[in-house]
Amino acid sequence: MTNDKLSKGELSRSRLLTAAASEFAAKGFHRTRVSDIVKAAGLTQASFYQYFDSKEGLYQQLTDTFVTKLWELADSGQKVTALTKADVFRQVRENLLALFRFFQEEPDLTRIVLYQAEEGEELHRKLASIVAVNLRQNQTAGHVHVELSVEVAAEAMIAVVDRMTSRYLLTGERTAEQLADDAVSFLAYGILQANE
Amino acid sequence: MTNDKLSKGELSRSRLLTAAASEFAAKGFHRTRVSDIVKAAGLTQASFYQYFDSKEGLYQQLTDTFVTKLWELADSGQKVTALTKADVFRQVRENLLALFRFFQEEPDLTRIVLYQAEEGEELHRKLASIVAVNLRQNQTAGHVHVELSVEVAAEAMIAVVDRMTSRYLLTGERTAEQLADDAVSFLAYGILQANE
Repeated sequence: MTNDKLSKGELSRSRLLTAAASEFAAKGFHRTRVSDIVKAAGLTQASFYQYFDSKEGLYQQLTDTFVTKLWELADSGQKVTALTKADVFRQVRENLLALFRFFQEEPDLTRIVLYQAEEGEELHRKLASIVAVNLRQNQTAGHVHVELSVEVAAEAMIAVVDRMTSRYLLTGERTAEQLADDAVSFLAYGILQANE
Repeated sequence: MTNDKLSKGELSRSRLLTAAASEFAAKGFHRTRVSDIVKAAGLTQASFYQYFDSKEGLYQQLTDTFVTKLWELADSGQKVTALTKADVFRQVRENLLALFRFFQEEPDLTRIVLYQAEEGEELHRKLASIVAVNLRQNQTAGHVHVELSVEVAAEAMIAVVDRMTSRYLLTGERTAEQLADDAVSFLAYGILQANE
């Protein structure tokens, strides 16, 4: 009985979170009202306040897990450092694939956090600083071109992933796998054929 | 006398355009009123309507030249096609430098057209299609990696220039020359040292 109650509660909470993600992604946080969320979830205002103290509180819970996972994925460049040169390309592709898959699985949260949040610029800069630390380590390890400014390269890499996600992944025009292939060629070796 | 009058008229028109660019860049098009523009230009409402039929008309004139020049710069990749491999890198750097210098000289218009315009996504896609055509030509000429999707690479290149401009150029943190150096290494040869 206690277990059943718990599952029902968890189900309602989860329905509210999913509905809120969809409403926020479509209308933006500010234009979404608690009444829109409960309506979309098929629940009552009272049940909303059983699980969340406010719209802001729900937003925090909704985005916290996403952002924590995002930091983790952004930091995956450190997996490259200890590898031999032959394995680096494969690992970079794997890292990019994990990132695109994460965005593909959570399109609403991706829209909310990456493209709508007021703190978007702050998030972007924090991501860039994580990636820059990894790039510097990999520069020391001999995997990354020595003449590259790691700060600028980190910003550039994030800009590429960001644009590929909004332009091709969230529109459904390409899959995570296709984008990982495109992104890894572009980011790893650039556009120009090297001089022979 | 006629010449003097013309110069005075041209001067007023130019002052209105400069003031409008600065107001639009700071407050956005919608929140800028004609009265803000004439105040900033130190002119009267009557003089505004001597040169422009409306705020929209002024906006059109202000951005038309900028956008035309932008298409031209975006198309500069075609200069690469006929070159020998040794000259390609130098030309790509020159193209990027011209683009960053253009944005540096027109910071207000860059903000308005690239980062505020409602038609920003449309502009972005048009730029990408111009760059993609050049990339395909240069792929045929043997300058660009054959495995690269030119559509995706074009979007990625624009995303990089776009982010470098807003993050480093418009904030005054780097010059056009510094960014051209960073951008050309990154875009031409990517981040990874090739296998030896």
